[in-house]
Amino acid sequence: MSRPLCTIYETRLDRPSLTDKRADFERLKDFFRREELSLSLEDLRKLPALLREGDFLLSPVVFHDERGVRILELQGKRCYGIALDIGTTNLVASLYDLVAERRLSTASLENPQVAFSEDILGRIHYAMLHGLDELHEALVDGVNRLVERLCDHSGIDPDGIYCATLSANTVMTHFLLGLEVRYIPVEPYIPVIHSPWLINASECGFRINKKGLLYTFPNAGSYVGGDIVAGILATGLHKRQRPSILIDVGTNAEVVIGNRDWILVSAGAAGPALEGGILRSGMRAEGGAIYRIEINDHDRTIKYRTIKDEPPRGICGSGVIDLVAELYRTGIIDSRGRIRTKTSYIRQRDGESFIEITESVAISEREIENFLRSKAAMFTSIYVLVKSLGLEFSDIENIYIAGALGSGVRVENAQLLGMLPRIDKERYIAAGNTALKGSELVLANSDMLKEVRDIHGRITYHEMNTDGEFMRLFPSALFIPHAEPAILG
Amino acid sequence: MSRPLCTIYETRLDRPSLTDKRADFERLKDFFRREELSLSLEDLRKLPALLREGDFLLSPVVFHDERGVRILELQGKRCYGIALDIGTTNLVASLYDLVAERRLSTASLENPQVAFSEDILGRIHYAMLHGLDELHEALVDGVNRLVERLCDHSGIDPDGIYCATLSANTVMTHFLLGLEVRYIPVEPYIPVIHSPWLINASECGFRINKKGLLYTFPNAGSYVGGDIVAGILATGLHKRQRPSILIDVGTNAEVVIGNRDWILVSAGAAGPALEGGILRSGMRAEGGAIYRIEINDHDRTIKYRTIKDEPPRGICGSGVIDLVAELYRTGIIDSRGRIRTKTSYIRQRDGESFIEITESVAISEREIENFLRSKAAMFTSIYVLVKSLGLEFSDIENIYIAGALGSGVRVENAQLLGMLPRIDKERYIAAGNTALKGSELVLANSDMLKEVRDIHGRITYHEMNTDGEFMRLFPSALFIPHAEPAILG
Repeated sequence: MSRPLCTIYETRLDRPSLTDKRADFERLKDFFRREELSLSLEDLRKLPALLREGDFLLSPVVFHDERGVRILELQGKRCYGIALDIGTTNLVASLYDLVAERRLSTASLENPQVAFSEDILGRIHYAMLHGLDELHEALVDGVNRLVERLCDHSGIDPDGIYCATLSANTVMTHFLLGLEVRYIPVEPYIPVIHSPWLINASECGFRINKKGLLYTFPNAGSYVGGDIVAGILATGLHKRQRPSILIDVGTNAEVVIGNRDWILVSAGAAGPALEGGILRSGMRAEGGAIYRIEINDHDRTIKYRTIKDEPPRGICGSGVIDLVAELYRTGIIDSRGRIRTKTSYIRQRDGESFIEITESVAISEREIENFLRSKAAMFTSIYVLVKSLGLEFSDIENIYIAGALGSGVRVENAQLLGMLPRIDKERYIAAGNTALKGSELVLANSDMLKEVRDIHGRITYHEMNTDGEFMRLFPSALFIPHAEPAILG
Repeated sequence: MSRPLCTIYETRLDRPSLTDKRADFERLKDFFRREELSLSLEDLRKLPALLREGDFLLSPVVFHDERGVRILELQGKRCYGIALDIGTTNLVASLYDLVAERRLSTASLENPQVAFSEDILGRIHYAMLHGLDELHEALVDGVNRLVERLCDHSGIDPDGIYCATLSANTVMTHFLLGLEVRYIPVEPYIPVIHSPWLINASECGFRINKKGLLYTFPNAGSYVGGDIVAGILATGLHKRQRPSILIDVGTNAEVVIGNRDWILVSAGAAGPALEGGILRSGMRAEGGAIYRIEINDHDRTIKYRTIKDEPPRGICGSGVIDLVAELYRTGIIDSRGRIRTKTSYIRQRDGESFIEITESVAISEREIENFLRSKAAMFTSIYVLVKSLGLEFSDIENIYIAGALGSGVRVENAQLLGMLPRIDKERYIAAGNTALKGSELVLANSDMLKEVRDIHGRITYHEMNTDGEFMRLFPSALFIPHAEPAILG
């Protein structure tokens, strides 16, 4: 039977008698049948009176960790929890009623650290110059605003929140806990901690119940963050016999391959991500983002759709894949991404050629080149991982595509570009925000703590930076679809 | 190799490299090779800089618990500890330098709760009427004064003290931790807790380092306190093949019998203690206490000696034993403790007969009767315990006599009175303050934590109140030496 990480337990104890003289605390501990019961001294002082007033019936707020039970409140009335995905660009959170065991609402907010720098390295640099505090506080403030928004929306008091689960990449986890980040991006890439313990939420400035606890997914190094561990948990690939692949095309693309026996993660050099960063017109998959593009074979006119049908403000990952695939399919660009044909929407500016989709949304030849580096890194990472295990693409059960991109990507276009292996389309699964889902799973089921630890313990990572095979194959993968298309599957 | 409960560890870590990319925290954790390493978030935030400034050499203050290691300070300069014996009447403490591994000094202080009531029940009653706070604070204040005195004496700063070990009876432990005591003395005799966890000393108001931890010996019920568990540890009887007996004749006499396989403790009804309480002239074994008495066979004059040869202020336990034994030997009292002979120092006052030793130190016939109840309870407890195990006195390896009494008692007189079994005098061992010694052992060697847990887990207690054999034999034991002297051994 699964039980939430934290909930209220109707706890009816045997009354003491001359044949059962256990002390109050041990009586309570025995009820839970776990190795450890933790309680504050303050609550221990209240325990005898509470037990006897209530005829040995209590309704404590109980947090389950791997070893035992922590009583956060001796008499609880309500118990909510927050699942968090702290992305470099976006914070997403779900609020759960852990007594009713249901999700109340989900909300997101731009990571307030974006104001310091769009990308992680810029933020680390800022922290090195000005100290961690500003970035730590900006992030915590963002989380608090998000929590407040969820609480307002559901009409609950943040004081009723007793736990939060958090998945984030290694740097974001460090920023959130106020830990030094300067050694993460430089050789030999050392984080302060891999597996944070349960932290008092108040120690981090979280405005939830002051006894609330924060669970943080462990990282497997500077480049394999808790978000990836959470993603693995969310897909369940770690429990199945046949290997599956998880591709997180969020802000920083990583590739995971694994099954119930082993898990391998590509680390480093997966290339820049598809959204933001490499494209001036790039944006996240939200209202106004162009996510579908078709080019007419005959007149080469561009048709696009935006998310929520809002006026176009930029182009998101799935839109870029569609665009480049359609440009190639219709012969506007060649296999190296160079513009070969003159059409009405090709512009020259400052010596650069642009594809102008709308007045404000355009993509340059150089940006297409950057995109091709990303797709080359992604495919080559997948290929090298699969081959390093002595496997073929046909051995792969599923390929999970995580991230906001996941729900929108047209697999046939990604395959046409040589970005994804050419296996049955049915085996591609749009997995959504797996980092958030992993967080939600732990919140909803404390047994997941052990599963996370197992996953974390089984991860090995494959450094692409220094992999000879990766280096050898990468240049061929820069072509559309590939200079050696036979390896696409 | 034994190591103190808390000490400073020279900790030289491997420097990180591309082939050893463990995070700072896990690197530190691996150094200690224990299941758990705990550190405050505050210290985790300081860790990366400290490690790199010191070229991966640290000198942390390290507390060893059973499961792992707690780092209380990342860079320590000194580390002291306090072993405490919190008696109903006296507080005794030793100060240790845990780096040099030696005891610096020992001191004692009257338990400030004596001002509320001499005996435990009176204090519990006071707490029920006026709340726990006054008694809790008085006790903590006493401990703080004692610690201060030790620190002054050795010229150290209390801030350098990182741990305290504490043995006390169940009620004193509860008072010290600020836990409800009202349910301890009433049926079914339920304490708040048997095995307190490690408590932040500051949570209890202890004025030592604010990160310091307090270890409390576990109790095995309302009447078998941590002081007894500490006493067992101190004698080592729990490790030997042949059974031994431990008698603590402090404020509340209890009898332990055990070996490496089992431990049995008599609980309840061991009768009033020998010191204080039952005698108006009774006092602890300290300066001015009459501790030796001889009565001349011919002229029946009394000769006595006082501790430190100070003017007599009262009579301590060993003095009472000597006195009653000599009164009996010289025929002044009969086998029921009644005064049978007129001598110069027998006085009548308010219808009571007194033996007047000095102008201010006297013992009445009724007090002798009370003493005989104590000795009867003690002998009968020992006898019943031994017999309940199918043993004879000759099977007993040693009889440890703990308490201030231990060093002074004349075994032959106690045997003459039928208080102690008639076995070789060599097998009686004056064990001194075993409660303090147990505390000191844990402080000096963290492996003792496990031993204490083992002892605690093995204790069963034998309720004398409801034991038919005890009830049957007790009346005969009221006689000097016994109505059935054959059972004395």
